[in-house]
Amino acid sequence: MELTPRQALIVDIVKKNEPITSEQIAEKLNLTRAALRPDLSILTMSGILDARPRVGYFFSGKPARNIISEKINNIKVDEIKAVPVVIKEGSSVYDAIVTLFLEDVGTLFVVQEDGSLVGLVSRKDLLKIAIGNADIHKIPVGVIMTRMPNLITVTPEESAYDAAQKIVDHQVDALPVVKIEQEGDKIKYRVVGKVTKTTITKLFVELGKA
Amino acid sequence: MELTPRQALIVDIVKKNEPITSEQIAEKLNLTRAALRPDLSILTMSGILDARPRVGYFFSGKPARNIISEKINNIKVDEIKAVPVVIKEGSSVYDAIVTLFLEDVGTLFVVQEDGSLVGLVSRKDLLKIAIGNADIHKIPVGVIMTRMPNLITVTPEESAYDAAQKIVDHQVDALPVVKIEQEGDKIKYRVVGKVTKTTITKLFVELGKA
Repeated sequence: MELTPRQALIVDIVKKNEPITSEQIAEKLNLTRAALRPDLSILTMSGILDARPRVGYFFSGKPARNIISEKINNIKVDEIKAVPVVIKEGSSVYDAIVTLFLEDVGTLFVVQEDGSLVGLVSRKDLLKIAIGNADIHKIPVGVIMTRMPNLITVTPEESAYDAAQKIVDHQVDALPVVKIEQEGDKIKYRVVGKVTKTTITKLFVELGKA
Repeated sequence: MELTPRQALIVDIVKKNEPITSEQIAEKLNLTRAALRPDLSILTMSGILDARPRVGYFFSGKPARNIISEKINNIKVDEIKAVPVVIKEGSSVYDAIVTLFLEDVGTLFVVQEDGSLVGLVSRKDLLKIAIGNADIHKIPVGVIMTRMPNLITVTPEESAYDAAQKIVDHQVDALPVVKIEQEGDKIKYRVVGKVTKTTITKLFVELGKA
């Protein structure tokens, strides 16, 4: 939050004199309390100042950004996840490309016969193979996919912030949302959703609505 | 912001009895003031309650979301725009694909000899042509691109929120940031940046940092 010069001055006065009442602040600034009220409201509502009834204003040290951060960190992947499109490991690259267009998605999750996640293919992977000399009708997606355990995944319990940070840090377009299951001594990943740059952009718009 | 049952109850009490002091709220809830303090802080800092020193708590009617909305609407495209990668209208589809991989981007902006924007090509456009029977070395990008005035553009003065909303509403991956110039009776668009889903995801992570 950008403070106006007067708001910055008020914060400064509160820092040095806390607790201080609005009358006292108004006096120091040579203003009426009515003139001061809008700035005090903004500073209190944004969490920069803390107001304790019958005591006065305090400097909270908590900038407006922290409220945003708190909100973003409290939204769970489970609440925002989108429907994943999956394809079998043995499908051809050509089938994968057709599925990509039909479903209008950027990433396909590759699963085994039992539904467990083994990899993913992106538009980029498919474009790379499509311009080569290989016969895309004969190559299975399993050959060109990014394979587990090299996938970056996220669980339903992680936050929207965690998911967005993984997307940025690892420079990927989409994360599979997985539930981890143990079968004997085998660990299996079941895809229960996806979080993509589109998911985050939609959430951003949702948060920005007045 | 999700309220806990106790927080919702406090908001309700304040709505009905404003102005009301923390002692009075504590009494109604049969709690000590100390036990009440964390919830009152959260409700005040998030802007749901308004505290006036020496008077008491008021219901502000302003939910936490509005602070986020205000912040997101105040960030200008000019502050967040990324560097656009451009290609000439006469370049081949093959050259476009190579540029896409070399620059590691998802969208190329197509310009005329004088640098003015005439269209864009996405990974999806390139994948579609790559699996066809056409010779991608011979077809110019100008033939397959999305052409002005069908592009969704944004100006440096618009907000990050406006840009994200255009991306979601029009289901596109990237917006060219344009400056509009008039030359005689011709209007030209100069590309000065881009805003993509990646840009918005990075901004989201930036805002979420504590």
